[in-house]
Amino acid sequence: MDLQKLIKGKTELTGKLSKSSPVVISSRIRLARNLSNIPFPGWAKSKQKREVLSKCREVVEGFQPFKGGLFVKMEDLTELEKLILVERHLISKELTQSAEAGAMAVDSRQARVIMINEEDHLRIQVLKSGFNFNRIWKTIDELDSAFEKNLDYSFSPELGYLTACPTNLGTGMRASVMMHLSALVLSNQMEKVIRAVGQLGIAVRGIYGEGSDATGSIFQISNQQTLGESEKEILKRLSNVLKTVIEHEYNAREKLFETERNMIQDKIGRAYGVLKHGYLLNSGEAMNLLSLLRLSVDIGMLETDWRDIIDRLFIENQPAHIQVMAERELEPSERDAKRAEHLRRSLIELPEPDFNKLTF
Amino acid sequence: MDLQKLIKGKTELTGKLSKSSPVVISSRIRLARNLSNIPFPGWAKSKQKREVLSKCREVVEGFQPFKGGLFVKMEDLTELEKLILVERHLISKELTQSAEAGAMAVDSRQARVIMINEEDHLRIQVLKSGFNFNRIWKTIDELDSAFEKNLDYSFSPELGYLTACPTNLGTGMRASVMMHLSALVLSNQMEKVIRAVGQLGIAVRGIYGEGSDATGSIFQISNQQTLGESEKEILKRLSNVLKTVIEHEYNAREKLFETERNMIQDKIGRAYGVLKHGYLLNSGEAMNLLSLLRLSVDIGMLETDWRDIIDRLFIENQPAHIQVMAERELEPSERDAKRAEHLRRSLIELPEPDFNKLTF
Repeated sequence: MDLQKLIKGKTELTGKLSKSSPVVISSRIRLARNLSNIPFPGWAKSKQKREVLSKCREVVEGFQPFKGGLFVKMEDLTELEKLILVERHLISKELTQSAEAGAMAVDSRQARVIMINEEDHLRIQVLKSGFNFNRIWKTIDELDSAFEKNLDYSFSPELGYLTACPTNLGTGMRASVMMHLSALVLSNQMEKVIRAVGQLGIAVRGIYGEGSDATGSIFQISNQQTLGESEKEILKRLSNVLKTVIEHEYNAREKLFETERNMIQDKIGRAYGVLKHGYLLNSGEAMNLLSLLRLSVDIGMLETDWRDIIDRLFIENQPAHIQVMAERELEPSERDAKRAEHLRRSLIELPEPDFNKLTF
Repeated sequence: MDLQKLIKGKTELTGKLSKSSPVVISSRIRLARNLSNIPFPGWAKSKQKREVLSKCREVVEGFQPFKGGLFVKMEDLTELEKLILVERHLISKELTQSAEAGAMAVDSRQARVIMINEEDHLRIQVLKSGFNFNRIWKTIDELDSAFEKNLDYSFSPELGYLTACPTNLGTGMRASVMMHLSALVLSNQMEKVIRAVGQLGIAVRGIYGEGSDATGSIFQISNQQTLGESEKEILKRLSNVLKTVIEHEYNAREKLFETERNMIQDKIGRAYGVLKHGYLLNSGEAMNLLSLLRLSVDIGMLETDWRDIIDRLFIENQPAHIQVMAERELEPSERDAKRAEHLRRSLIELPEPDFNKLTF
């Protein structure tokens, strides 16, 4: 697989969701790991980082699931290519800035991702569409074991896995979901939800993690604690909180449709109209409009089959993807025109929502 | 003709325009006249106003062009019916408040309108679509002569026609056009234009006259002076100024399409999208969106045949018309839903503009 193929390929972030959970777009678990006797990347010398890279690469290349995948060093990528990987949620912005010996490995399904020499030597990640921690845990546990068999992890019997930042110490695990909480946003309840789950040690962030906006009413919700509980306990506790959030979102939708039916129809109708006939759209507005179109699927105005087209557009919508589509670098205003064109064309594939079908 | 028929009938404010002047939606001339030896309506006693009403009614009923038209006293109308007449630009808000002996006569084509006991005893008006002072002058002059033959006008050889307000003294004439100046608005040049024509004794107002907003980029432009020049001189001077304004609007369009093609496409595309798929629209927003759709006709995205549908929607769009359509009084939020419904349905009649056809 090369990068072009990766862009055209399906990402695990979109895909058919079980009808029972349209609110959770995707789930992810990542583990932070470091090799013993080598300083963390922030303190390591060039030679040491290259040593980490070569050791990790060897494991990746010997591991069956990565056959047919992609292994790239950051220094071999253009800025645009790096951004593509960030927009697909495969790597972090931090990794793109690791001038030396930073690398990424991804399997052909774009489900398993390894970051090398980010904040830790190894960041092992597994992504899947929908709400699915059990399957993800099984996959990442296998992946982690494959590395552990071949590498000497930095591990303390008392503290667990040692990590560059103490907030990852212990399990080194962060589990998160991407949630589409449109009704909670429309009814101004998100602040309350963020405060409540925060008290349970659960963090709510915007779509690109820490400090980012909740454009498109999409939130990343994850565990804060990594220490003092087993991985399964953390996942169970997080899942319970997430189930409550989903319930709140459903309640908010029900109430909204009862009391503000016209407002919902209007917002979704306008979103569809502007996506279908607009000629200039910046990525934030496009996300917000797509978010409303996604809601139209959830409430029965569009068949559920169309949800993954919309989820794909969320990703294709972003600046680097738009430029790759145009096959050249674009000024922001050119991007807005190209984005609008791509969305107009994509919406032709989609049937017009039945705005009177509010079957939630 | 009854009021229902009037509402369903064609108004002279819309209609086929000559291709050369899509900027001017409609033209109007009105003459202020008073009967001699009877105080102006603001000072007259009830009995005197009723005398004016009965004298004027007699002339109207004997005048051929008003056969098949409508004669109504304000006191016989509901508030909603009065508002309908205001929204069709047939009568003024002031007339609707004249509790006593205020009346209106209109011919079957809704071109000739007489207001009785407004600020003056008689306000004679003629409206026509397009830019057409010559034809209007001919019609109103005939109408005025018919009244003058039967009534004793209050006239001073030195000052001309005497009027309740000195600003109408002399000719008693106000000539105005309704202009659609979308490019001058989009390129922020209207303030400059208003200042410039103001210095020539020409007033620019919003769509409902003095103090109203320029919603939908529609402006009412009229002469200020009524004294010291003949009617023909006033009309000629006004026409020359209007031609300059039209030219400015065309230049602004040309420049805008050269430099901001995407912005124009985007604004018109969004307007079409929201009109076609919105579920809540207040009258101001609807006017602004229709204004952009009207521009799409002017620049070749839609056939000119569709312009009068759009101009009709400008009128039907208004609160009283929406309520008559719904056959009951509506709360503002219900009106917004009904208005959006009417616009959605009307836009089905219209082909989709060809947004890439910018043939101006």
